[in-house]
Amino acid sequence: MRLLTLARDLRRRKARERQGLFVTEGVRAVEELLRAAIAGRVTLRGALVAPELGETSRGAALHAALGGNGLPVLEVSGRDFLSAADTDAPQGVLVLAEVPTHPLETLAAPLAAARPGAEVRLLVLDGVQDPGNAGTILRAAAGLGAAAVAALPGTVDLWSAKVVRSAMGALFHLPTLTVTPDALAAFLGEAGVPLWGAAGEGEPVAGAAAEAPPALAVALGNEGHGLGAAVRAGCTRLVSVPSTPLVESFNVAVAASILLYELRPAALRGPRDG
Amino acid sequence: MRLLTLARDLRRRKARERQGLFVTEGVRAVEELLRAAIAGRVTLRGALVAPELGETSRGAALHAALGGNGLPVLEVSGRDFLSAADTDAPQGVLVLAEVPTHPLETLAAPLAAARPGAEVRLLVLDGVQDPGNAGTILRAAAGLGAAAVAALPGTVDLWSAKVVRSAMGALFHLPTLTVTPDALAAFLGEAGVPLWGAAGEGEPVAGAAAEAPPALAVALGNEGHGLGAAVRAGCTRLVSVPSTPLVESFNVAVAASILLYELRPAALRGPRDG
Repeated sequence: MRLLTLARDLRRRKARERQGLFVTEGVRAVEELLRAAIAGRVTLRGALVAPELGETSRGAALHAALGGNGLPVLEVSGRDFLSAADTDAPQGVLVLAEVPTHPLETLAAPLAAARPGAEVRLLVLDGVQDPGNAGTILRAAAGLGAAAVAALPGTVDLWSAKVVRSAMGALFHLPTLTVTPDALAAFLGEAGVPLWGAAGEGEPVAGAAAEAPPALAVALGNEGHGLGAAVRAGCTRLVSVPSTPLVESFNVAVAASILLYELRPAALRGPRDG
Repeated sequence: MRLLTLARDLRRRKARERQGLFVTEGVRAVEELLRAAIAGRVTLRGALVAPELGETSRGAALHAALGGNGLPVLEVSGRDFLSAADTDAPQGVLVLAEVPTHPLETLAAPLAAARPGAEVRLLVLDGVQDPGNAGTILRAAAGLGAAAVAALPGTVDLWSAKVVRSAMGALFHLPTLTVTPDALAAFLGEAGVPLWGAAGEGEPVAGAAAEAPPALAVALGNEGHGLGAAVRAGCTRLVSVPSTPLVESFNVAVAASILLYELRPAALRGPRDG
């Protein structure tokens, strides 16, 4: 399939799943993607470039770097480019890359690699639907030291253009995978990793964090309905962020960030931290 | 001006500022707005209702409640309604209300009302531009016990439809005001309230939080450029959320939430919290 047609097609989830490809657009995001490709974490398939990219020296350097890596680079008109882009201001560069596929056992790697007693945090997304929320969570998870992210059915496609954009490169560095609740529960059970869930009625996370085991999975639920019944039933502990009565709940990305912050690995704690 | 024309007009910032009005749409948000109006925190001006609202009993009850409060309620066609609405699925209800105007002295009220030693947190937005980020920050600030929010020039209009929507009602309960950096600095100086700023190179907030004074203002900067020079110069301390090298920075709403969480008032801390 021609690169332009393919890029247009990849705006649909079904096409992304069938082709195993996703699209990244914009100078900064593509620079980040290129770094991940050089590190061997992502495989690139091709690039679309519009004349606009050459208007800045940073853009021209990126154009050269893409071609210099032996990647097929198709130069198209600004109009054709826009027909494939997801945003109104895509800066004239768009790259197609393979969705990194991680089996469930990927979750075992950080557990096996950790020194005895070192904290390993796995994040579980159980029906997070808004792509901006999902991307913000992925970015926060990468920054707060989560080792991997498992997405359960009902979660937004983590490789949609808007999630990729909101994640600001975090998706290229953090292993993500999709899994059923049953398979996840079986894996966590066998690995001896407890699952904590975020829920409004849970105990304050600050108190619970003091008793957190070295290896821990943390589940965040849907924006409207919270955790699904299957995941909730598998949680050994429910935790929450205490709130004033002025709001009903926190945004799920805010809740996820505060929970991951409270449960962050020692490397992200200063000498004076509690 | 007719209610329908006025509602359409209010989608522009200039019109909102000239009229001193803003628009809230959707069943849940309008319910929240109605509660704030009954509590005397917001003054309503009128409502637009489309036939769609009557399709659910919750919508019909809201329709009745709006009319029952003596508010002018204009019933319009679905098409006219959509011409004034900001979202694609506005649920057939939209209310015009007065922007609550708070003078700078508003910031003094929670300081004066606090018991000796009780924590008062003021949030300063210095150029936060994305309406989704601003709304998420307002919602988090209300939940995490901030007493008021001051927006400096360059910050998105907090009364735009998208901020109101993302704030999920928090805007109706949390005093907000706009102010210049000079006026803010003069006020904080006179009140003896130090200003801390969020900056990537700042010290970890967890350590700083242990030394936080009872009354404290915290400034968050622009998504791309961080704090402006004027605000940065006025900060007595710069704080940050420690991050792995996988991300360049946190989303500003994530950073704001974690900072406000670390600095939260005692009422939101459990007996076991650090």
